[in-house]
Amino acid sequence: MSKKERTAIEPTREENYAEWYQQVIKAADLAENSEVRGCMVIKPWGYAIWENIQHVLDGMFRETGHRNAYFPIFIPKSYFEKEAEHVEGFAKECAVVTHSRLEDDGHGGLKAAGELTEPYIVRPTSETIIGASFAKWVNSYRDLPLLINQWANVVRREMRTRLFLRTSEFLWQEGHTVHETPEEAMEETMQMLEVYARFAADYLAIPVIKGEKTEGEKFPGAVNTYSIEAMMQDKKALQSGTSHFLGQNFARSSNIRYQNREGEFDYAWTTSWGVSTRLIGALIMAHSDDNGLVLPPKIAPAHLVILPIYRDEKEKEAVMAVVKQVQEMFKGTWFEDVHLYTELDDRELTGSERNWHWIKKGIPLRMEIGPRDVASGKVMIARRDQGPRDKVAVEMAQIKDYVLKTLAEIQANIYAKALKFQQDNTIKIDDNKAFYKYFTPKNEEQPEIHGGFALSHWCGDAACEEKIKEDLKVTVRCIPFDVAEEDGNCISCGKASKRRVVFAKSY
Amino acid sequence: MSKKERTAIEPTREENYAEWYQQVIKAADLAENSEVRGCMVIKPWGYAIWENIQHVLDGMFRETGHRNAYFPIFIPKSYFEKEAEHVEGFAKECAVVTHSRLEDDGHGGLKAAGELTEPYIVRPTSETIIGASFAKWVNSYRDLPLLINQWANVVRREMRTRLFLRTSEFLWQEGHTVHETPEEAMEETMQMLEVYARFAADYLAIPVIKGEKTEGEKFPGAVNTYSIEAMMQDKKALQSGTSHFLGQNFARSSNIRYQNREGEFDYAWTTSWGVSTRLIGALIMAHSDDNGLVLPPKIAPAHLVILPIYRDEKEKEAVMAVVKQVQEMFKGTWFEDVHLYTELDDRELTGSERNWHWIKKGIPLRMEIGPRDVASGKVMIARRDQGPRDKVAVEMAQIKDYVLKTLAEIQANIYAKALKFQQDNTIKIDDNKAFYKYFTPKNEEQPEIHGGFALSHWCGDAACEEKIKEDLKVTVRCIPFDVAEEDGNCISCGKASKRRVVFAKSY
Repeated sequence: MSKKERTAIEPTREENYAEWYQQVIKAADLAENSEVRGCMVIKPWGYAIWENIQHVLDGMFRETGHRNAYFPIFIPKSYFEKEAEHVEGFAKECAVVTHSRLEDDGHGGLKAAGELTEPYIVRPTSETIIGASFAKWVNSYRDLPLLINQWANVVRREMRTRLFLRTSEFLWQEGHTVHETPEEAMEETMQMLEVYARFAADYLAIPVIKGEKTEGEKFPGAVNTYSIEAMMQDKKALQSGTSHFLGQNFARSSNIRYQNREGEFDYAWTTSWGVSTRLIGALIMAHSDDNGLVLPPKIAPAHLVILPIYRDEKEKEAVMAVVKQVQEMFKGTWFEDVHLYTELDDRELTGSERNWHWIKKGIPLRMEIGPRDVASGKVMIARRDQGPRDKVAVEMAQIKDYVLKTLAEIQANIYAKALKFQQDNTIKIDDNKAFYKYFTPKNEEQPEIHGGFALSHWCGDAACEEKIKEDLKVTVRCIPFDVAEEDGNCISCGKASKRRVVFAKSY
Repeated sequence: MSKKERTAIEPTREENYAEWYQQVIKAADLAENSEVRGCMVIKPWGYAIWENIQHVLDGMFRETGHRNAYFPIFIPKSYFEKEAEHVEGFAKECAVVTHSRLEDDGHGGLKAAGELTEPYIVRPTSETIIGASFAKWVNSYRDLPLLINQWANVVRREMRTRLFLRTSEFLWQEGHTVHETPEEAMEETMQMLEVYARFAADYLAIPVIKGEKTEGEKFPGAVNTYSIEAMMQDKKALQSGTSHFLGQNFARSSNIRYQNREGEFDYAWTTSWGVSTRLIGALIMAHSDDNGLVLPPKIAPAHLVILPIYRDEKEKEAVMAVVKQVQEMFKGTWFEDVHLYTELDDRELTGSERNWHWIKKGIPLRMEIGPRDVASGKVMIARRDQGPRDKVAVEMAQIKDYVLKTLAEIQANIYAKALKFQQDNTIKIDDNKAFYKYFTPKNEEQPEIHGGFALSHWCGDAACEEKIKEDLKVTVRCIPFDVAEEDGNCISCGKASKRRVVFAKSY
């Protein structure tokens, strides 16, 4: 065996994927665990990614006619009790507010006091509290469609948490809409799933599979749930966004009624849809490598870091003059539809230390400017999607063109790489033994590495789904849209099936 | 008496200011009370104002070197107990989370279950939880200054609430910074107060008085609190933003220590500063009139509404062709440093109904386009800062120039009007009887209307402050920066005083 090359992140993906993930986050300074159980602190570089996600998605929501609003964080217990499936789904893990003050406990400490007549739940999702407002806002078909989005924090108490992927508090957006007919509500549900898929592909550079969730995996209270599913580098699936057709379920429980075109009162048809800070987890796990974070340029907080190199004041003066020119060159510049931001790192550290700092943070381009470069009228530019030591000389006059062209290349490369990985690890399996073998880890010591997505037939029976889950920890990720009907036999029971579904292990 | 002119808002400001305020909010569709005690629902037009406030302030924070991050919503009780004054200030009205799930209560309902070993408080402000992170992030003077901002929701349970002005949950930003020296921390405290004052004047068109809070009015745990105070149209003061110099108080309780340039460990110096959705209340009460909301163009969600007028399909075709031209004309246009947005209202309502709809919403400009206008190559434009029936004909070729010029005029007019009102209602009072008369309502039936700001001498004794508060419900709003020292006598006790302070009733 050849001597292992040292990487910035240890362990590597091969060695221990779960730990690699934590170390990438740490090295890029994205987030950390807090002492509040299950809650994370999102640090500036991580939060800036979230702000970019918000900015782009918010524009897409506006273009499709949605408006932002804000509803209370607390949900009265009685609202929660109205929809049976919904409460079943969320009551087991929630934060319950029962008291309204703290008072002296007589031992130098404080105790909860002022018990509330009705406890509140900190919102795990807002269908019921928003429904209470919608019931007041909707009177006639003229008030429809009602297209609202909320950016907010939500709380679902989780036992085993992982930064970004599963935390007790997380940030998200939740769209809530009301429609006159089931067709319109379904059209909205599909439109927003499509918005999510387009955002994932075009900005996060993550190819996703769109499809419907099975009965067992759908949102509590929904008629149908649809999701986008992405493949991480350990070949597991990550559900990255969901869009729900709620039928008249929540309209009934919240009493959202409207006078239709015939003058009669009827319950309205509603939808909800959301993505969360989990997308940052997807971004990390889809693209990063053993040297740290890799950011698609269209979602990166900054695109180019300038690293000046000098040994004395005279060199510094010459170098910093060029640095200033480059900074000026990019002021007010756009990379496609996003602002192009530069960073300057002139800390008193070695060139190598600063270089590796930014490699680990995933910035798309690094530019070194030293005395020799100044003399030759050039700068050295390195790309995050190439080796850490690869760099090319670019003439001053060419810098802007080179940067814009290269950012577009990086964005395309990252997407192409993720797509190839997904395709290489997605196979049709029709044989039960082959299916079981595919999902059984080859190496006991590295149970994380296993098969990817299996496109296999499923009869639709929950018992078959459950058996596979128990045997292999593999679930039906979705019933994909882009797979044609065909005759086949259920991978578990062998009964006739009309369609292949996506099986995978998942987060 | 002349016959009273009918206004869009009833009652008028004169008749009942508090109720007028509620009605302006309702007529403009900004927000409403929810069934969750003290919590409001911010509706799209109100939320869009908040988004504009966020956008502008966020840019100002970035320019001054701050970065956004996000910290947990829950504060462990033990964190809260660390700073004595702080807990004293917030423990009496807070939301306490004590349980982690709901379970069947045996009577068809649900009850709180899964009691937590340590209760959490839903953040009323985040000094203690952010301090816990800062203690980990700060090790050396090289890590300083640390300049962080958070956009978040906070909860302070309030008994008597009023939309935007005082709600149990509200949205805000809270800046938290750490410094090497008290001088630097104080400089930061002052810089951010100045940012708030500039934002209030230049965007909200509200002139404010900057000054220091008295000992009794400062933030629990702060060494000094500074605020900007604005005058509302009922002549009451509204504290619109605060900036706190926290000394080493929170550094001590959170253990934020750093190695200084001499190699010794010392507690750092911290600041915090915030503004909230209360600013929307300030905006409403400072500028609106008896016909509804008046929005300064630089913070309005939209600047120009187009109101097409036609009676048949033929007229519609001609009119809508011009509407489209006008819409195109403004695509991608900026009004100074904000995007210029147009709205189109072609609902099936009368011209008058649509006109009044937008007057009440406070949009700066309304443009009518009818068949006669099309024929003459002109449109009719009305301004929100003039009478509801005043309008001028503007030629097509002049529209863009006229709109941009007029928006700037409106912005300046609104500010000038508010400044004149503040100046007209601020007087120096040196006589105790005159002071008491100034603050005693002239009309028993309209206790809201009273004197404005009194610049009077105060000896600095809390007892004098307390007496005036008890007698008149008047408090020292601030010890203003822009008032020179001069010899005088305390308005209450008559003892020697070096300085005038601002006395007023307040929200």
